[in-house]
Amino acid sequence: MRLGKAMASRRLNVLREALSEKGLAGAAVFNPENIFYLVGVSAGVLYVTDSGATIIVADIDYEETREKVSGAEVVKTDFGELPAERLRKIIPEGRTIGYEEGYVNVGLYEDLRKDIALRPLQGTIEKMREVKDADEISRIEEAQRVTERALQKTLGSISRDMSELEVAAEVEANMRRAGAEAFAFETLVASGPSAVYPHGKPAAKRIEEGSAVVIDVGSRVRGYCSDMTRTIFFGQPSAEFVKIYRAVLEAQTAALDFLRAGVTGRDVDAVARDVLRGRGYGSYFSHGLGHGVGINVHEPPSLNSRGRSALVPGNVLTVEPGAYVPKLGGVRIEDLVVVTAGGCRNLTGFSKEMIVI
Amino acid sequence: MRLGKAMASRRLNVLREALSEKGLAGAAVFNPENIFYLVGVSAGVLYVTDSGATIIVADIDYEETREKVSGAEVVKTDFGELPAERLRKIIPEGRTIGYEEGYVNVGLYEDLRKDIALRPLQGTIEKMREVKDADEISRIEEAQRVTERALQKTLGSISRDMSELEVAAEVEANMRRAGAEAFAFETLVASGPSAVYPHGKPAAKRIEEGSAVVIDVGSRVRGYCSDMTRTIFFGQPSAEFVKIYRAVLEAQTAALDFLRAGVTGRDVDAVARDVLRGRGYGSYFSHGLGHGVGINVHEPPSLNSRGRSALVPGNVLTVEPGAYVPKLGGVRIEDLVVVTAGGCRNLTGFSKEMIVI
Repeated sequence: MRLGKAMASRRLNVLREALSEKGLAGAAVFNPENIFYLVGVSAGVLYVTDSGATIIVADIDYEETREKVSGAEVVKTDFGELPAERLRKIIPEGRTIGYEEGYVNVGLYEDLRKDIALRPLQGTIEKMREVKDADEISRIEEAQRVTERALQKTLGSISRDMSELEVAAEVEANMRRAGAEAFAFETLVASGPSAVYPHGKPAAKRIEEGSAVVIDVGSRVRGYCSDMTRTIFFGQPSAEFVKIYRAVLEAQTAALDFLRAGVTGRDVDAVARDVLRGRGYGSYFSHGLGHGVGINVHEPPSLNSRGRSALVPGNVLTVEPGAYVPKLGGVRIEDLVVVTAGGCRNLTGFSKEMIVI
Repeated sequence: MRLGKAMASRRLNVLREALSEKGLAGAAVFNPENIFYLVGVSAGVLYVTDSGATIIVADIDYEETREKVSGAEVVKTDFGELPAERLRKIIPEGRTIGYEEGYVNVGLYEDLRKDIALRPLQGTIEKMREVKDADEISRIEEAQRVTERALQKTLGSISRDMSELEVAAEVEANMRRAGAEAFAFETLVASGPSAVYPHGKPAAKRIEEGSAVVIDVGSRVRGYCSDMTRTIFFGQPSAEFVKIYRAVLEAQTAALDFLRAGVTGRDVDAVARDVLRGRGYGSYFSHGLGHGVGINVHEPPSLNSRGRSALVPGNVLTVEPGAYVPKLGGVRIEDLVVVTAGGCRNLTGFSKEMIVI
């Protein structure tokens, strides 16, 4: 369950090497996901130096942090004192420290730099997190198994008189029963024209006959996320929907066949986009092809037109082409894969046959 | 469902008055909750001036934002351009603009202030949100009704052979079926000694005979949160648990009787704390008595030792004393109330009798 000591020590040492290369005496880590990655808990603030690591937490989190942390000593703040305030007292004056520029607000920045020289970490830890180790992949796979068991069970129990909310209720309850400690993101069940919007909430209205229903779900297990989408049909789909579904699936298959270490996210995105363009749905594929998944359900690297660096073994990515036709509805099919030297390993075992309820 | 035009206009005008008092020509609003409060959607960045308001969103959010926004014109970014980048081009050079210092990272701050003078808003919009209007209270009440219907239904179907995860599955599915568009926070179902930790996740292990089970749940309806906790018992509770439960309930009753406009959060907290101290559980009440609830499930004002300003009518607050005894378990009882001139109106109608499964 908890992060092993050897693993925490390895990750902290990779960070220490990066700090040393940048000429930094330490790093103040505020991003809770980065703290979780390094020492297995996500409270307070973590201060890493070349010889040690200290996590500073509020009194209320002290006992739990002590029980669960790996690789760092735990300090609790005084009553009313913020972890960042205590951090200032711990860092010796005049030190040059790395900080996460996206997680430190201006007030704290001005305060810290009175006594300490601050240098942006520029995604050092996020970059480490892009390449998953075996422990991380096993957690992601477990989360994916939980989601798939839940979706399979749900398909056996939903009926055509249900609303989007009722379908969401079933799949979420089944994720819990299968072992989800949390949901990786807000479950999306979007039918008919509402599936055209990317951030739709499930609605209480009955799903209409002939609708495509996009179900985008993920579980969190031991701190790691999974992410998958299947599109099912309530009643026999129209010929147009069959065409769209096949085009989206073909786009995904082409991208999965192409994906391997060494190619860029931009290249993979283009492969799927070309297929959809060839089938006449190019303008209806209104988002990127995929994103990294780990402690966060959306993290680098990305499979889209801005993904210019080469993918490497250990990247865990979604591959999720879609086509969203205004007034008609949307189709999306999403798998989760881990990049390997010669290709990718699909962590999603769920059928992609057209499912009609 | 959506924010009325008159309401958006009223809220924007209150903000404009505050800006004018501070000598500011406008405000850049990045906090998604503040954007939702002002114009009814929560995408991109909102720029408010004395005569207008513009929301800048990515292409993918453009149509949905146009359909749902009130009181602001919608601008979409060019491909690959961030909303904040477009904002820079829209604000005339040399203007003095308010910004949310907790939501602007150092990189963006340095970038914006090349051409624009920036002044911290110091919680101007958050302060407005502390006092809920009738529309907001009706949304919170609706969310609370959804949660209560769900918990009531759950109590009728759970059995003593269940795990924490199975109880969470039931109550969440029932919240969805009752109309929750989302969960206000991660559902907490914590039994036995694990209820001592504030951030425990539901576990797959069967709940032990004689355990107290803390169930802390909330729904989100039309963008607003509810929050409630009940503690139930799996099997007949020990005499010690009966004593703890009564003490916590007595502390809550005393605080609810005392709570009214004009008193401070610190005073209300002290009332509950005194009762628990008198019953011998003072050191086991390890958190504040309550917090504001609205678009965010945790927002100002707070009922704790730092709450030094007077409460006002329209504050919506939780009142949630608890006692957490190491190795034994915890009891918490939480209601949601709206402060009135002479007291408070309890939005929670759920029984506080001891419930034994």
